[in-house]
Amino acid sequence: MSSGELLSHARPVGDAVVLRAMLDAEVALVRAWAALGLAPAEAVRAVEEAARGLSVPGLAERARASGNPVIPLAAALKAAAGPWAHRGATSQDILDSALMLVAHRVTGSVLDDLERTAGALRRLAAAHRDTVMAGRTLTQHAVPTTFGLKAAGWRSLVLDARDRLRAVRQALPAQLGGAAGTMAAFGAHAQQAERESGVTGGGAGGGVEGRLVEAFARELGLATPALPWHVLRTPVADLASALAFTTGALGKLAADVLVLSRTEIGELAEGTTGGSSAMPHKNNPVLATWIASAARQVPNLAATLHASMAAEDERPAGAWHAEWQTLAQALGLVEGAAADAAELAGGLRVHPGRMRENLALTGGLVVSERVSAVLGRTRAEELITRGEPFPEELADPEDYLGVARSLADRALERS
Amino acid sequence: MSSGELLSHARPVGDAVVLRAMLDAEVALVRAWAALGLAPAEAVRAVEEAARGLSVPGLAERARASGNPVIPLAAALKAAAGPWAHRGATSQDILDSALMLVAHRVTGSVLDDLERTAGALRRLAAAHRDTVMAGRTLTQHAVPTTFGLKAAGWRSLVLDARDRLRAVRQALPAQLGGAAGTMAAFGAHAQQAERESGVTGGGAGGGVEGRLVEAFARELGLATPALPWHVLRTPVADLASALAFTTGALGKLAADVLVLSRTEIGELAEGTTGGSSAMPHKNNPVLATWIASAARQVPNLAATLHASMAAEDERPAGAWHAEWQTLAQALGLVEGAAADAAELAGGLRVHPGRMRENLALTGGLVVSERVSAVLGRTRAEELITRGEPFPEELADPEDYLGVARSLADRALERS
Amino acid sequence: MSSGELLSHARPVGDAVVLRAMLDAEVALVRAWAALGLAPAEAVRAVEEAARGLSVPGLAERARASGNPVIPLAAALKAAAGPWAHRGATSQDILDSALMLVAHRVTGSVLDDLERTAGALRRLAAAHRDTVMAGRTLTQHAVPTTFGLKAAGWRSLVLDARDRLRAVRQALPAQLGGAAGTMAAFGAHAQQAERESGVTGGGAGGGVEGRLVEAFARELGLATPALPWHVLRTPVADLASALAFTTGALGKLAADVLVLSRTEIGELAEGTTGGSSAMPHKNNPVLATWIASAARQVPNLAATLHASMAAEDERPAGAWHAEWQTLAQALGLVEGAAADAAELAGGLRVHPGRMRENLALTGGLVVSERVSAVLGRTRAEELITRGEPFPEELADPEDYLGVARSLADRALERS
Amino acid sequence: MSSGELLSHARPVGDAVVLRAMLDAEVALVRAWAALGLAPAEAVRAVEEAARGLSVPGLAERARASGNPVIPLAAALKAAAGPWAHRGATSQDILDSALMLVAHRVTGSVLDDLERTAGALRRLAAAHRDTVMAGRTLTQHAVPTTFGLKAAGWRSLVLDARDRLRAVRQALPAQLGGAAGTMAAFGAHAQQAERESGVTGGGAGGGVEGRLVEAFARELGLATPALPWHVLRTPVADLASALAFTTGALGKLAADVLVLSRTEIGELAEGTTGGSSAMPHKNNPVLATWIASAARQVPNLAATLHASMAAEDERPAGAWHAEWQTLAQALGLVEGAAADAAELAGGLRVHPGRMRENLALTGGLVVSERVSAVLGRTRAEELITRGEPFPEELADPEDYLGVARSLADRALERS
Repeated sequence: MSSGELLSHARPVGDAVVLRAMLDAEVALVRAWAALGLAPAEAVRAVEEAARGLSVPGLAERARASGNPVIPLAAALKAAAGPWAHRGATSQDILDSALMLVAHRVTGSVLDDLERTAGALRRLAAAHRDTVMAGRTLTQHAVPTTFGLKAAGWRSLVLDARDRLRAVRQALPAQLGGAAGTMAAFGAHAQQAERESGVTGGGAGGGVEGRLVEAFARELGLATPALPWHVLRTPVADLASALAFTTGALGKLAADVLVLSRTEIGELAEGTTGGSSAMPHKNNPVLATWIASAARQVPNLAATLHASMAAEDERPAGAWHAEWQTLAQALGLVEGAAADAAELAGGLRVHPGRMRENLALTGGLVVSERVSAVLGRTRAEELITRGEPFPEELADPEDYLGVARSLADRALERS
Repeated sequence: MSSGELLSHARPVGDAVVLRAMLDAEVALVRAWAALGLAPAEAVRAVEEAARGLSVPGLAERARASGNPVIPLAAALKAAAGPWAHRGATSQDILDSALMLVAHRVTGSVLDDLERTAGALRRLAAAHRDTVMAGRTLTQHAVPTTFGLKAAGWRSLVLDARDRLRAVRQALPAQLGGAAGTMAAFGAHAQQAERESGVTGGGAGGGVEGRLVEAFARELGLATPALPWHVLRTPVADLASALAFTTGALGKLAADVLVLSRTEIGELAEGTTGGSSAMPHKNNPVLATWIASAARQVPNLAATLHASMAAEDERPAGAWHAEWQTLAQALGLVEGAAADAAELAGGLRVHPGRMRENLALTGGLVVSERVSAVLGRTRAEELITRGEPFPEELADPEDYLGVARSLADRALERS
Repeated sequence: MSSGELLSHARPVGDAVVLRAMLDAEVALVRAWAALGLAPAEAVRAVEEAARGLSVPGLAERARASGNPVIPLAAALKAAAGPWAHRGATSQDILDSALMLVAHRVTGSVLDDLERTAGALRRLAAAHRDTVMAGRTLTQHAVPTTFGLKAAGWRSLVLDARDRLRAVRQALPAQLGGAAGTMAAFGAHAQQAERESGVTGGGAGGGVEGRLVEAFARELGLATPALPWHVLRTPVADLASALAFTTGALGKLAADVLVLSRTEIGELAEGTTGGSSAMPHKNNPVLATWIASAARQVPNLAATLHASMAAEDERPAGAWHAEWQTLAQALGLVEGAAADAAELAGGLRVHPGRMRENLALTGGLVVSERVSAVLGRTRAEELITRGEPFPEELADPEDYLGVARSLADRALERS
Repeated sequence: MSSGELLSHARPVGDAVVLRAMLDAEVALVRAWAALGLAPAEAVRAVEEAARGLSVPGLAERARASGNPVIPLAAALKAAAGPWAHRGATSQDILDSALMLVAHRVTGSVLDDLERTAGALRRLAAAHRDTVMAGRTLTQHAVPTTFGLKAAGWRSLVLDARDRLRAVRQALPAQLGGAAGTMAAFGAHAQQAERESGVTGGGAGGGVEGRLVEAFARELGLATPALPWHVLRTPVADLASALAFTTGALGKLAADVLVLSRTEIGELAEGTTGGSSAMPHKNNPVLATWIASAARQVPNLAATLHASMAAEDERPAGAWHAEWQTLAQALGLVEGAAADAAELAGGLRVHPGRMRENLALTGGLVVSERVSAVLGRTRAEELITRGEPFPEELADPEDYLGVARSLADRALERS
């Protein structure tokens, strides 16, 4: 049982996943050296093989002692695979690249779930183009609207999240800068390799460092960075923003579902609902609850990541370290929330009858704005105060929907 | 003396500015009605004139009582200018539009300052292409780098901030949705206006609502929204992300200036420095301090804004209200920080001599990575333990700069 | 019109208040010197008089240039009142003391409002000891409870807030440490004063510094600190915690009022409600909305304050500065929320009829837990599935209130 | 390998720990029933035995589906141990009690480490009572101070943290309220048990619920709550405050260690330092880095917890759920930081020689405040501008320490 699962609806980024990604980065590095003709094929095989089965006893404890998990990992890898392992790299190269790999995988899954969510919301919006319900402001009935417009609005937020997350994902870069971001060790090792092998031209001259970064990024399926970004944390800050945006967007959907599935309101219900350990009749909106929980947590995790941008030196003492678990936690929460949202949107049950009934609760006052617009506010207030009915031709809520339908139609055109 | 100035290096968004922007939005609304041929010219003049001199006694107190500042403001405006004022609008239409106007103006000024900052950093990076200094990680000397690369890195962050802020700014939308985002009242008023004026065709039929939004946004110099965004808070969330990014980017510059201008390090100094009420010799890095202070505050303000996305109903009870002052505060802090950064970068004094002296502090150990790369880690550690000097051909820090220069050159190509 | 009022239900801590408090601190300092027999009476009078009418043109701008508002303020005060002004103090002594003064005044007002709130809630709880309503979990009816227990629970949170805030308030300390917290300048000035006046014994020997702090704190009505706390930010962190606790406690009350005053639920209504600029029938729960808004903002402001504890050196570059406006903002929000809560609790209208009606909405399922306890879960689920009524002797919600009444009774005993 | 360890210097609260605590709570519940004479001894034995070996396949997945981990856990426990398991309880009773148990254990370990830290700091402060060093403000040398005073200040913060944490720990309550906090099911089950067993008097009459809570809390070693606190989150909010305070207090120590162990400053060094994967000479201040990282994360986690106080209904949909992982994460970070601080303080190496050397760096200006106090600011500035030395009798930094020594002495008297 890995940690963090019991207390979280998140899909936590487990240590096994992080370890795998760090080893993937180490393998990509030696392959990049080989792609430049500077490392022998047997070095690649040795690292690949060592990485496959590598088990580092007490890795977490040793990470704590040395300052990060790559130091003991690289030591173990070198012991098993020889000196080509981790060549020229600094710990941050491997850990940052690994976290970007993890982010790439998680956001891929999130994007799939956002598409599923958007698809389900499109269907809901289209099916309920004409379903009239109360528009509510500050908890009170305001004027009529349609459920179609509401669902189209949810979808537009989901698409906004998708667009932001997709852009960030495509730019997630590999990291390869060496100790202080000058890539000096890569050059030194390249010269050394040429000297030892007698091979020239493939390598150390003419920008070996740039070609190495490109090969490394290609191996990892990540973008090539313009500069080493050890202390230029644009990728992490952009992730933070997009992750907070995503739980915010899904959190809007969840907030509405929670309100509208209240016992007294009953306009919506989750398709599959949670039970109770004590009350056999309870049908809890569990998915919306998980999403709402995530939407409370991720903004503050993002704040920690944003604050880490202000990092001193070529590697800071604390700001970088505060990112690791925070980013992993945020990714896990977003992955969970996106999966929950897809399930929620796909199974949502809509009760137009209850919507109509609720709309009648104010005895016609829900169109007071219209009466006010047509007869003047003074007259409208007069009627309300006296308890007199509004004129029949102004009183039908279905007739006071403004452009709810066409707004929804247009919003659904977006793909 | 307006509030918040004494305790803040921010340029606080004062109440006068907000009031002005709300009145601008009210004027733009009646102009938009007129542009559609639905409001008479005298209505426009009446609102313009009333808005010019409008003073609402006890506005803040009445805002508190009624729920937002637009309710008493609109009442006063109607009393002064007649019924065309505020026609069809809900309070949120005016307040959201006003805040977007303010954001548009502030971010314009911020973008100017970011450009000035980037320009100054480009000059610094170019002038110090070959200025060698210690690269520092976890507070310790690591390997040599150049001040040019450091300044080029700062600049790349500033440009990242500029790009994000510029994109957000261009998309800042007007708000015009009516009570629950269906624009129903606008249609009702349009029909009423046609009926009263006898004019037809200009107006109520065929999408008057859409044309009204376009005209309103045009008047304000803001973007036309695809949907009313009363509870689809993409613009605010995007602002939050970009503002947090900006103080993060500037915060990196400030963090480095603070370290490097320490008494013991002395590699940098602010051009104009702050004094002390007690110590005549003190030269404090005041600008970097203000920026660092902003970089600590804005991420948490952004978190409040991100959390407000999860807003129930067609207008939430609390989430929207939490945005107002938070956004104003964040805008003020970023405006202040950007101005400070431009002044800081423009006046920064660089001391290459101190950089060289400091680089020598470890007695050559700053190139231990190179010795390790060339002679092997075992041999390098042997030399270090014995206190023996490194081989002369490996010992010059200026000769172990990797691709610091070309990285900086390439980074400066970005415009 | 001071800033921050329009966009905030807070009672913002205006610049005039801060200026007043800084001058109070300056006056207290010279009085403390005089109380030790080290400053002449005319020096006290000079500072008092100068402080009364002091106006510093461009104070905010000069604060920005020099690094804090005390530097230009102290300069102006010295120019007007002579060298006894600000004697021995560092800027932080004055500004920290001033902020503690402001906090002392604001929390005093907050405590009054919390007492008023608790009193009103006690009356509500007592009056509704037997008012049955649905207990709700995850938005769904769960089992019956009483409104008395709910109100008693709100009150217990308010008393918890009161206790925490009161304890923090009593410990709010004056600040007097000099440039780096050693109080060296106070000793130097004391010796100088003795030398100049020929007076001995009253002063510099034998712990003049300690006696000066005590006299200074006494003048301000603040606690005497054990150590200068320039970088030992216990008072600010404790304030942060208590302020976040307070809006959390009031936020619980607001959250329930917002739910229970929904159009469909209608069990509660604010005594005075807000209007709408467009809909004459709207009665918005404005007070609960303001409180909910504050409860969203203050935790993140508190986080900034908590983070500022980790401050380097004898005075940090940024962490201290980030506190000023953040603390002022948090104080203002809490002052506003407490006033709103007192008004809300005092005027809350309770509708027991709606509570009973709503309780019937699940057709008896609200006692399913009891049926399950008595007949077994299997049998209870059988009845629910078949749609059969529960046995009459188990079906009355009023008969399944557990110890709601006695819990409330006991909670009300707390004073 | 449990999750969260690799990316965190925290001691993460693993799922096994949470599972254990939930089962402890279930066992305590049946024991409490038995202590009241209402459950038979064999029921206790059955639950104890089942809890010992209980493994619930797919527990995390089923927790997600049902809404919390207690629902599937209680079902499995009932299946294994019969109907006395989980009797009368709601999921939140078990989960809240379990988290308080975990918090009780973790904070116990934290308090031990804070005592160790405070002890080591007392020794440092005493040993360095007369060790003179530069006091620094805004990164610049200000006036002299002593390392003894600095260490005594660190200790006072640690003791403040200890006091707050200890008070919170002693008040950590068990939770036992039933579905909506009325304890109704406990009464129903008690009556049922009496009826079935023929036993009377031991039980259902006369406040069985109150006695059950007391027995339950006693079994768990937790405090008895005055009210069920499902939505009265004082214990969690108080924990949040104390945890944020603790990392803040330790973060101050870490911030100073990081500054003072910089290569250029060299006044402090960690006893055991971290290595580098690339640079054999590096000695990184790893412990201070971990603490600094925690001090960046916990305030924002605390903010999430503070925000969760504003929870609607008798159990909220989201606010409660957001607490679980957030609290676990914060506890783990504080446990790690406290252990690191104890190790850091215990092994800290102090270099008085470097302190003296650095103090000389400003060529005497570090006493400019004193010269200004004695000769007047004009004369002091004159000397500084002309580059003339200060008068000898004012120039010795060791002679301008104010009451640093006696402040430290007095601070060390606190126990």
